[in-house]
Amino acid sequence: MCRWLAYSGTPVLLEALLYRPQHSLIDQSLHARLGAETTNGDGFGVGWYADDRGTPAIVRDTSPAWSNRNLRELASHVRSGLFFAHIRASTGTAVQQTNCHPFRHGRWMWMHNGAITDFHRLRRDLALAVDPALFSSIEGSTDSEIMFFLALTFGLDQDPPGAVARMAGFVEGLGHEHGVQHPLQMTVAVTDGERTWAFRYSSADTPRSLFFSSRVETLRKLHPDVTFLQEVGDETRLVVSEPLGDLPGAWNEVPDSSYLVVQPGTDELRGFVPVSP
Amino acid sequence: MCRWLAYSGTPVLLEALLYRPQHSLIDQSLHARLGAETTNGDGFGVGWYADDRGTPAIVRDTSPAWSNRNLRELASHVRSGLFFAHIRASTGTAVQQTNCHPFRHGRWMWMHNGAITDFHRLRRDLALAVDPALFSSIEGSTDSEIMFFLALTFGLDQDPPGAVARMAGFVEGLGHEHGVQHPLQMTVAVTDGERTWAFRYSSADTPRSLFFSSRVETLRKLHPDVTFLQEVGDETRLVVSEPLGDLPGAWNEVPDSSYLVVQPGTDELRGFVPVSP
Amino acid sequence: MCRWLAYSGTPVLLEALLYRPQHSLIDQSLHARLGAETTNGDGFGVGWYADDRGTPAIVRDTSPAWSNRNLRELASHVRSGLFFAHIRASTGTAVQQTNCHPFRHGRWMWMHNGAITDFHRLRRDLALAVDPALFSSIEGSTDSEIMFFLALTFGLDQDPPGAVARMAGFVEGLGHEHGVQHPLQMTVAVTDGERTWAFRYSSADTPRSLFFSSRVETLRKLHPDVTFLQEVGDETRLVVSEPLGDLPGAWNEVPDSSYLVVQPGTDELRGFVPVSP
Amino acid sequence: MCRWLAYSGTPVLLEALLYRPQHSLIDQSLHARLGAETTNGDGFGVGWYADDRGTPAIVRDTSPAWSNRNLRELASHVRSGLFFAHIRASTGTAVQQTNCHPFRHGRWMWMHNGAITDFHRLRRDLALAVDPALFSSIEGSTDSEIMFFLALTFGLDQDPPGAVARMAGFVEGLGHEHGVQHPLQMTVAVTDGERTWAFRYSSADTPRSLFFSSRVETLRKLHPDVTFLQEVGDETRLVVSEPLGDLPGAWNEVPDSSYLVVQPGTDELRGFVPVSP
Repeated sequence: MCRWLAYSGTPVLLEALLYRPQHSLIDQSLHARLGAETTNGDGFGVGWYADDRGTPAIVRDTSPAWSNRNLRELASHVRSGLFFAHIRASTGTAVQQTNCHPFRHGRWMWMHNGAITDFHRLRRDLALAVDPALFSSIEGSTDSEIMFFLALTFGLDQDPPGAVARMAGFVEGLGHEHGVQHPLQMTVAVTDGERTWAFRYSSADTPRSLFFSSRVETLRKLHPDVTFLQEVGDETRLVVSEPLGDLPGAWNEVPDSSYLVVQPGTDELRGFVPVSP
Repeated sequence: MCRWLAYSGTPVLLEALLYRPQHSLIDQSLHARLGAETTNGDGFGVGWYADDRGTPAIVRDTSPAWSNRNLRELASHVRSGLFFAHIRASTGTAVQQTNCHPFRHGRWMWMHNGAITDFHRLRRDLALAVDPALFSSIEGSTDSEIMFFLALTFGLDQDPPGAVARMAGFVEGLGHEHGVQHPLQMTVAVTDGERTWAFRYSSADTPRSLFFSSRVETLRKLHPDVTFLQEVGDETRLVVSEPLGDLPGAWNEVPDSSYLVVQPGTDELRGFVPVSP
Repeated sequence: MCRWLAYSGTPVLLEALLYRPQHSLIDQSLHARLGAETTNGDGFGVGWYADDRGTPAIVRDTSPAWSNRNLRELASHVRSGLFFAHIRASTGTAVQQTNCHPFRHGRWMWMHNGAITDFHRLRRDLALAVDPALFSSIEGSTDSEIMFFLALTFGLDQDPPGAVARMAGFVEGLGHEHGVQHPLQMTVAVTDGERTWAFRYSSADTPRSLFFSSRVETLRKLHPDVTFLQEVGDETRLVVSEPLGDLPGAWNEVPDSSYLVVQPGTDELRGFVPVSP
Repeated sequence: MCRWLAYSGTPVLLEALLYRPQHSLIDQSLHARLGAETTNGDGFGVGWYADDRGTPAIVRDTSPAWSNRNLRELASHVRSGLFFAHIRASTGTAVQQTNCHPFRHGRWMWMHNGAITDFHRLRRDLALAVDPALFSSIEGSTDSEIMFFLALTFGLDQDPPGAVARMAGFVEGLGHEHGVQHPLQMTVAVTDGERTWAFRYSSADTPRSLFFSSRVETLRKLHPDVTFLQEVGDETRLVVSEPLGDLPGAWNEVPDSSYLVVQPGTDELRGFVPVSP
């Protein structure tokens, strides 16, 4: 299990989301409420775009987020209008920087909460399905990174929701071939620096939790006293593994088997169905 | 808050205590039951004496114990008849190797769970009270290490319980001078490689938890099926922050304001009263 | 021995100085030319001011600079008009984050190359001379950090060159009392976010190397083809442990027993004499 | 480039070889003489067999060997009659524990100095050639680990020199298919806990350096004053990337395209020729 957060909107200091909320991501690293484990201490990562929206910066470390001083320094000095943050709870693979999220390829970032069931048995076939030209860029040993490279293989650059659907379909198909009943559990966020897609899906009945924030203009009326809401524009949106606090009306569940597109203009919520690639 | 374990007796692989018990120290790093915090993920340390009982080896790391592979390797290959293990939950000082327990000086090892209240305010006066000849050996920034150096200053080498009583008395006296109502919370283990002293004391009403194992010959009769009890001799004794499992009859609370001496022959339980140095 | 770099001027990506020059600071981490050791692999740090020149961000790590991926990420995404960078070669104290430079206190940053001779023997007296109100902010175990806190004690906030002179005088006086012939070797950079002071001094004959860059307008005429010189303004100045390359006319030695003030308007070079505090 | 050491013989403290010699492996981490780089600071590893010669313990860390305190602690407390030690200089892959040598599989240990040329391009095909049943045990991203798994695939358990020859032949064949002129540079040590095989081979003209120690009984006569030689038995043998000192008569070069078998009884030196698997 892991926890993550994807921010889009008015450029803010990372700490505004990572440290300041009552149940911030840092708090979740010790006291997650909606996950299988309360502790997410197997490393963390943040990825952010600078103003020019080129290749994002990715800072990852194997230490727990709650005690990492460099993360606190960055969070209080770096401002961004599109960033990802992730805290990891390893499901068995090594605690090492190359296994920390987000993963990056060119301008793309990817992070994941969930698991491929029996990954150990499926790993080779999954790796073989990655575009040979991309294979050597795989640096770590997680299912999450291979899911990213499969999505890249299946056309992430041209059609993100389609590529993720094909990735999920491929994982499910391969799993079923190997006799795995429920091969995939995932909440995934992926961005190209302009738009962010957030997916919630499970091969079984109970998907991992995923929430998105309500429209800022609505929230401002409900909570005129919340400063942060006054400081950010209407295009600001958060997608999170679990709510950062208990503000009434602030959080909406992403339905199972669906995905959210956070983009300039109106965001969209659509159904998600894995497809055979 | 931290958790610790002190083992004396028949040489065993460290893993027999660190990993194998149902509620082992490694399990406590994620799921402590009797502490203020459930997570003890701010580093760990093990210290052990080799057969010749010279200077103990001390291996410490800032990573959480639960995911540290080197600890697992050591624990499955190193055998010792007297070892300490500690998992840390920082009360504010840096997560760094020199702040991890156990601390060592010559043949002595020391580890601690608890805190000096308002340590930040008392730190300078505490440091000044350390024997000037020892001052430069202080490497970290914790209250625990300074408590050790104060005990060394106050005669640990000649009279361990007396030195610890004088250390506690000094800390309490200094605290009271600075208007601190309850200056000291401690469970401390200290050893010279032959005997181990384990102290439980609090300036306030509620001391941190501390337990010692029952006599092996008694436990063997109660639990003839527990293999470990067949493999270790009658002199084997464990002192722990919290029980390693639910074996009926296995664990006894160290009373508040008292200390246990684990030694060749009969162990002893005595009252502990801080004294002015 | 360590190596460091202090940049002031037109905001640039940190990588412009840390990675791109022929003999960049990263190159010096493996192949220093003018130091006692060629390898500076005991950790690193960067500290930078954001546009608002408040408290600087400090990112430090114990890993060698040459292989640290987070440093590379930061350096290629963070832009600053005033930053420090330091690579460490420990002279014996622990390799830990709190021993990495730069050190920070409020808006001040400090970094050092050199050593207090026989620091182990002098450490207690040096620590005692630190303002008691500051004592608890000492986190590490280096001579460099204590030098910073002594300078703060002796008035860094009001009179930086005077405070550093008093710190140096105090160290020399104390050293001589303890029979240390040449107590101090130092090149120090300190900044409040507006001005930077860089000192070069040794109690013995041979001070550590220190250089500053020539005036940008002069260099532009000499080297019209060097792009970097076209991109930065006339106020841009570098102070470095050793030149970042072999550009003719680019580097000037800071004379022994002197200090440079890098500031808005004309920079100044003045003599430095330790004084008794 | 890396440096390594393989010890077989009378059980000794690891420090006898890692720290005490004039040009010990720790000294080589900062000042290697015969390698392409003088610094080997990208992590280290030690692997040793306990008395029962079961699965070896493997302790690896990404920090430089010269400053790692845990390595010093282990080396001064752990005794072994068969151990490997390795210091790493990365040729580009991540500095992470799973990329540090020695690698282990069951009772086997493997370490390597050298490189597969253009590994990035060959990596996928190399990985595909690994026995599918072993694929998921690959944890890191180095050429060295894949060479190990290829040797395991090609029969290391039954015929170590043959398996290594087939691995080398496969790498060369694949490299030539991809237009790589000189695909392989290697000095490899591999052991099952009883015997150690040390290979020296290069597809090009200039192989990496490799030496083995002279017979102890011969050395004792030459150097009756060297204590270490009095303390170890006649079966003691060292294989090293470069000599640990300048003792006349102590070191012999392993000829290019050959391998040494260190075993109970007479050791053997034989020719090595890659073969197509």
